[in-house]
Amino acid sequence: MPEHLDILEGWLKSYRPSELFNEDGRLRPDLKDLAPKGERRMGGNPNANGGLLLKDLDLPDFRRYAVEIDIPGTQTAESTRVAGHYLRDVLKLNAEDRNFRIFGPDETESNRLSSVFEATDRAFMGEILESDTQLSPDGRVMEVLSEHLCQGWLEGYLLTGRHGFFSCYEAFIHIVDSMFNQHAKWLKVCREIPWRRPIASLTYLLTSHVWRQDHNGFSHQDPGFIDHVANKKADIIRIYLPPDANSLLSVVDHCVRSRDYVNVIVAGKQPQLQWMDIDAAVAHCRTGLGVWEWASNDEHDPDAVVACAGDVPTMEALAAVMILRETFPSLRLRVVNVVDLMALQAPSQHPHGIADDAFDRMFTTDKPVIFAYHGYPALIHRLTYRRANHANFHVHGYQEEGTTTTPFDMAVLNRLDRFHLAEAVVERVPSLAAAREGFARFVESKLAEHDAYIRDNGEDLPEIRSWRWLASAADAQ
Amino acid sequence: MPEHLDILEGWLKSYRPSELFNEDGRLRPDLKDLAPKGERRMGGNPNANGGLLLKDLDLPDFRRYAVEIDIPGTQTAESTRVAGHYLRDVLKLNAEDRNFRIFGPDETESNRLSSVFEATDRAFMGEILESDTQLSPDGRVMEVLSEHLCQGWLEGYLLTGRHGFFSCYEAFIHIVDSMFNQHAKWLKVCREIPWRRPIASLTYLLTSHVWRQDHNGFSHQDPGFIDHVANKKADIIRIYLPPDANSLLSVVDHCVRSRDYVNVIVAGKQPQLQWMDIDAAVAHCRTGLGVWEWASNDEHDPDAVVACAGDVPTMEALAAVMILRETFPSLRLRVVNVVDLMALQAPSQHPHGIADDAFDRMFTTDKPVIFAYHGYPALIHRLTYRRANHANFHVHGYQEEGTTTTPFDMAVLNRLDRFHLAEAVVERVPSLAAAREGFARFVESKLAEHDAYIRDNGEDLPEIRSWRWLASAADAQ
Repeated sequence: MPEHLDILEGWLKSYRPSELFNEDGRLRPDLKDLAPKGERRMGGNPNANGGLLLKDLDLPDFRRYAVEIDIPGTQTAESTRVAGHYLRDVLKLNAEDRNFRIFGPDETESNRLSSVFEATDRAFMGEILESDTQLSPDGRVMEVLSEHLCQGWLEGYLLTGRHGFFSCYEAFIHIVDSMFNQHAKWLKVCREIPWRRPIASLTYLLTSHVWRQDHNGFSHQDPGFIDHVANKKADIIRIYLPPDANSLLSVVDHCVRSRDYVNVIVAGKQPQLQWMDIDAAVAHCRTGLGVWEWASNDEHDPDAVVACAGDVPTMEALAAVMILRETFPSLRLRVVNVVDLMALQAPSQHPHGIADDAFDRMFTTDKPVIFAYHGYPALIHRLTYRRANHANFHVHGYQEEGTTTTPFDMAVLNRLDRFHLAEAVVERVPSLAAAREGFARFVESKLAEHDAYIRDNGEDLPEIRSWRWLASAADAQ
Repeated sequence: MPEHLDILEGWLKSYRPSELFNEDGRLRPDLKDLAPKGERRMGGNPNANGGLLLKDLDLPDFRRYAVEIDIPGTQTAESTRVAGHYLRDVLKLNAEDRNFRIFGPDETESNRLSSVFEATDRAFMGEILESDTQLSPDGRVMEVLSEHLCQGWLEGYLLTGRHGFFSCYEAFIHIVDSMFNQHAKWLKVCREIPWRRPIASLTYLLTSHVWRQDHNGFSHQDPGFIDHVANKKADIIRIYLPPDANSLLSVVDHCVRSRDYVNVIVAGKQPQLQWMDIDAAVAHCRTGLGVWEWASNDEHDPDAVVACAGDVPTMEALAAVMILRETFPSLRLRVVNVVDLMALQAPSQHPHGIADDAFDRMFTTDKPVIFAYHGYPALIHRLTYRRANHANFHVHGYQEEGTTTTPFDMAVLNRLDRFHLAEAVVERVPSLAAAREGFARFVESKLAEHDAYIRDNGEDLPEIRSWRWLASAADAQ
């Protein structure tokens, strides 16, 4: 025992305390002065509280990039390409401040954000050859085939007071599930600490989504990141499914301005039908969801509500409505589109949740709601289970069925296609009881025709590929 | 144009086709013979269809490792330590076949599976020093702090016809979300291909779970892997929440025998109360869920059902029942414990789902069900939303609240503790309406007492730490 004390004394004395402390046992003032002061302290350094350094972005008016829409559902555009024009000008306007970057494991070009290369290059530190294009050491697009690296870079960039934007294949964003968790937990805790200043939100654009993996197939199909995100605190997370280019513009602008959130935007890059002019899109995004009057004929008393969230589901839902209106002219249908998924949730559970009376007016309290949804159907049930009409919600979405096939066949495999959706309505509207059997035969024959055609031709039926809203349905208004 | 044809001809001739093909244009037989035949073909190699090589494990009778239980909820054991004894003997019995391995990013020792080191070592290929213990080049425990590596190794091991077991911190298994996706998709597709033989299931043991991160805190709390898994095809996935050592034994044995599944087992490693003797555990695990008669006093007509899934929620639920029975002796409560989460789902949605009439008998069709659940509450709603009594389900679970604190405080922060659970019952049983206000005051004062005590003492109240089922509640039977 005493020899242990000797060893201890010897070890402690090896630090030469007599050179460090005064006779009264205090640290010598000249040594104390060596410690950094104020902002030089690790915890006081503004880079460790990035909100202190945050400068608002100079943002262009997103309305300037809008697609002109005359009649809904009759023209196509690539929604992400339109968003790319806006992002290009965000890069330009903030070039001097050097505080905005785009991150992505996939090709920014293939995600149709190519316009950004009019304003900047890809960052590249290695030797640049004459044959290289769009590479430079100060490029502001960080492109590397590692979701982990993109996420880590972006987190660091945001935490030190800058702004960023992450575009990724939907299925592979799961690679950073665990990193997202930690960032969301960090944001949640920081909101409870008064001296921590708000930082820019972490915004994901998930393009190349589950419904358009025409060439990649089953391995590239997973819309579950939305579910993963929805488990985190409601005041941190936002999930948007803009169905067209103008709503995507409005959502991107909103996300880029926001603070202390994780925003998830899911939007396709393929040419797709456009539904809303810019004013309609802005109004629609503001409430987060709403009745599309131009597609509805319910006269305030629908037989059924056809709801949709996501670009492909929206098209299939409207095609289903057109089939139904052509087949059953007296059927009264209401179309509701959802952009802000959290608007579905009860206001007690998410700040974006719309009031129960507004929800009930929109979805009724007793009529069937056929809901065409981008992801796994369970999430819609989860978000709406406290709503009065929940028991009448019938959700079609991704059922983990897929392969390398045509876009429409992907919808068919998961019963999200127009025919299955229309059949779901017919099955649940009492006044159509007599028509059910005949309609089921019609659906069966259409699906058989589809199946035979794609096997012979490797592409969807002409009537599917060239489908447009309008025709008799619009005439009927 | 003709000069392009010349270039094409020159290029094709550079392959010297005259040396490769006969005059009739067929591949020369001596060259054709160079290609491997039968099992030497890449696609015909049994290692690429591991089920062909799969040999059933020689398994000990898991009942031999059972913990003796006299009175439920009065003794403690470390459940994973007991499972470790069983795994040790699985390693021993199959040592010659060398076809079973344990994988883990965390310490197998700290997860209390230490017994396995009586049968094998950790695999280590580097130089082994005299001071090293439990390391050898042929050790069958693969321990490395990379979830990715563990998952990849295990997938390869299973796909080539061997058996394995993955133990991991619950929160950090999200690191392999994306890898799990691909394995689940592979299994789903292989079941549709007749010549692909079944392989051993991929079994995760998630220990060190959300409720017992006493020293690690918020960053280590995430029970969402269950939700991620639940999105995959029902015929592939199995999720178990054994509440004690004997049920864990039964579940582990079942999982090790299974084929073509992904099994997720969530079970704590800390000393915890034991509820079922081995016969009761086997019967309980066989149905997947059931009424615990010994804890119920409902006389086939409960005022409320108290349900639970997971070890910590089970203890809190039973403690709530004891408080309620002591306070309201005439209150009729039924206790239902759920081991196999998929048993909750409608049989049309999962093969383990129990029939609606059995479900309705157990959970009633009109009485409040207070459900104490291990993970995010939404999953229980998702699994039960097609059941008759769903609107009366009130689920308490992880609400993404946590910090470095005592075990009981974690439950309190997320309203999963006995007092909040008891209060939830009192709030919803009509005959207790007059008692609500008084009971709420009682709960408030108990929680205030708890809060003050942990701040002063850094550990839970003695009445919490030493709580046992029994006492007056058991006497009352």
